[in-house]
Amino acid sequence: MKLAFLDKYRDVLRTGLAQALHGDDATRQMLRYHVGLETAKGKPANALGKLLRPSLVLFVADELGTDLGSAMPAAISLELIHNFSLIHDDIEDEDVQRRGRATVWSLIGVAKAINAGDLMSTLAIMEGTKASPETVECLLDAMRDLVDGQSMDLDFESRWVTLSEYRAMIQLKTGALFRCAFELAGIVAAVPPEIIKRLASFGEELGMAFQVRDDMLGVWGDKGQLGRPAGSDLRRRKKAYPLIATHERASDIDRRFLERAMKTKPVTDADIEKIMSLMDRLGIRSDGEVRMRAHLQEAVKQLPYIPFSEDGLQTLGDLFEGLTAFMKPTEA
Amino acid sequence: MKLAFLDKYRDVLRTGLAQALHGDDATRQMLRYHVGLETAKGKPANALGKLLRPSLVLFVADELGTDLGSAMPAAISLELIHNFSLIHDDIEDEDVQRRGRATVWSLIGVAKAINAGDLMSTLAIMEGTKASPETVECLLDAMRDLVDGQSMDLDFESRWVTLSEYRAMIQLKTGALFRCAFELAGIVAAVPPEIIKRLASFGEELGMAFQVRDDMLGVWGDKGQLGRPAGSDLRRRKKAYPLIATHERASDIDRRFLERAMKTKPVTDADIEKIMSLMDRLGIRSDGEVRMRAHLQEAVKQLPYIPFSEDGLQTLGDLFEGLTAFMKPTEA
Repeated sequence: MKLAFLDKYRDVLRTGLAQALHGDDATRQMLRYHVGLETAKGKPANALGKLLRPSLVLFVADELGTDLGSAMPAAISLELIHNFSLIHDDIEDEDVQRRGRATVWSLIGVAKAINAGDLMSTLAIMEGTKASPETVECLLDAMRDLVDGQSMDLDFESRWVTLSEYRAMIQLKTGALFRCAFELAGIVAAVPPEIIKRLASFGEELGMAFQVRDDMLGVWGDKGQLGRPAGSDLRRRKKAYPLIATHERASDIDRRFLERAMKTKPVTDADIEKIMSLMDRLGIRSDGEVRMRAHLQEAVKQLPYIPFSEDGLQTLGDLFEGLTAFMKPTEA
Repeated sequence: MKLAFLDKYRDVLRTGLAQALHGDDATRQMLRYHVGLETAKGKPANALGKLLRPSLVLFVADELGTDLGSAMPAAISLELIHNFSLIHDDIEDEDVQRRGRATVWSLIGVAKAINAGDLMSTLAIMEGTKASPETVECLLDAMRDLVDGQSMDLDFESRWVTLSEYRAMIQLKTGALFRCAFELAGIVAAVPPEIIKRLASFGEELGMAFQVRDDMLGVWGDKGQLGRPAGSDLRRRKKAYPLIATHERASDIDRRFLERAMKTKPVTDADIEKIMSLMDRLGIRSDGEVRMRAHLQEAVKQLPYIPFSEDGLQTLGDLFEGLTAFMKPTEA
């Protein structure tokens, strides 16, 4: 996903992240490594992620007529919250790689990595306090929802769940930070509460679309798009959209096969192949695309109430295009 | 340590904790278990800790003429921060018991326990936002220092350190929350900045005294006082005051023995006995008592500048007495 508006804010966000995470100690060095500012040895690196969430804060704040400077603490805070959760998620999921780089816990061990995540979350909220109390409230609400969503996701590991439980989980785990990104922009720009509500809904639906997409890439994405090979979420036995939908839609006999296959550690290659052909048979991929588009359509319903410029609407159009591009057979 | 002022605030703090941690989900239930409001099965329990930190907030706020209600969010927030750190510390130290009860991670596993701690820290700061932005700032500073102190403590596991490094560590890891307890009371009572500074110093020194005491109880305490048997910190190879002081003061030959003994997993009973007699020989226990009293004396220097009542000074006297009581041979 290559988007012009992400390039626009990249340098200023890089500077903001470096300032928030400055310090000579090994823990802050590891936080800079994690966000991609440095190598594991502390040398400068060019490994920042997309910075989608903070870029959205800055883009929307810009659209609503606020200067970048006053939106920066909120944007940086949000990105740090996202990254605190990634550091802890990687421990919880026992993932050794993220975006092609070693995860923090795989480098410094679980104990220090838990503590590094704790530092990231504390610095995140400290950054938010540079803005207003409403900003802090919004960030804390999002952080609580994120953690509650992660509670649900961890609980999913030990049982099969419905698509409606899945929806509730991603609304918290992913929806909340995107929701917060748009709310923060509205708070900083001091737009009326009705518009902040519209912004919040827009962000939440966008976030859920984003998560469904991410879940589909975890099964059908190629290594280039996500840094993980096709079928990788099945191998990790991750109860993400494709697996949950398959379980819900499968016949009794296929469901029993699926439950049996997912109990095997590690899941065998033969079973992965069978699950992927079962998914084809049930049309899980196209259903996922429909589900993702439905979230985007819900988001679009809010647009008439938000004073986006023509250019702004074009940027959002490009973003939607970027998010759905993987659906085209040639790019999948 | 039995103190009247702790009993005074116990019920109101119990109510405040229950309110902050209310909710039907399994994660909040586990948080209520952790603080001792409930059993692991979710039944009411009578297992709250001493609640020393939040009681100090309420006591000092009371002394400075503030009503309990306005000091409550700060007090509860501080106690939740303390407990968030305990949940994560127990994972990091692989401790299966705390105050005679199973630790959170030993009940629900590392992944869910990390996330439960994250929820506790988020709810902690949310509670703080019910007070003023200065309150939140104070709480976040303390949380950052606490986490930085834990970074140092974790780093100590892999090397021998000096008493001056130890002092810097406990100033952050324990001093910060006690410092914050006293500052919070001053902030809520809106006393002048000069007095808040005095309160902060008092709290920080008290906290360091408390930590040195705790470290000594980890070696010389009986099971009744701390829920852990004599010598238990040595068995855990914990680089706490007694071990660090012994290493610093020992002759070359004794130091080599100590380093060798602490490399053995688990540390043998014979070595524990030898280390404890080495400590006797070097007078580590009485040096620790001197060190602890020195922190209390530093705290006392601030008293003339803080408008404590006669009753208040009596309460602090009782607290100091309670902290040093274990030094008397009959109670040790």
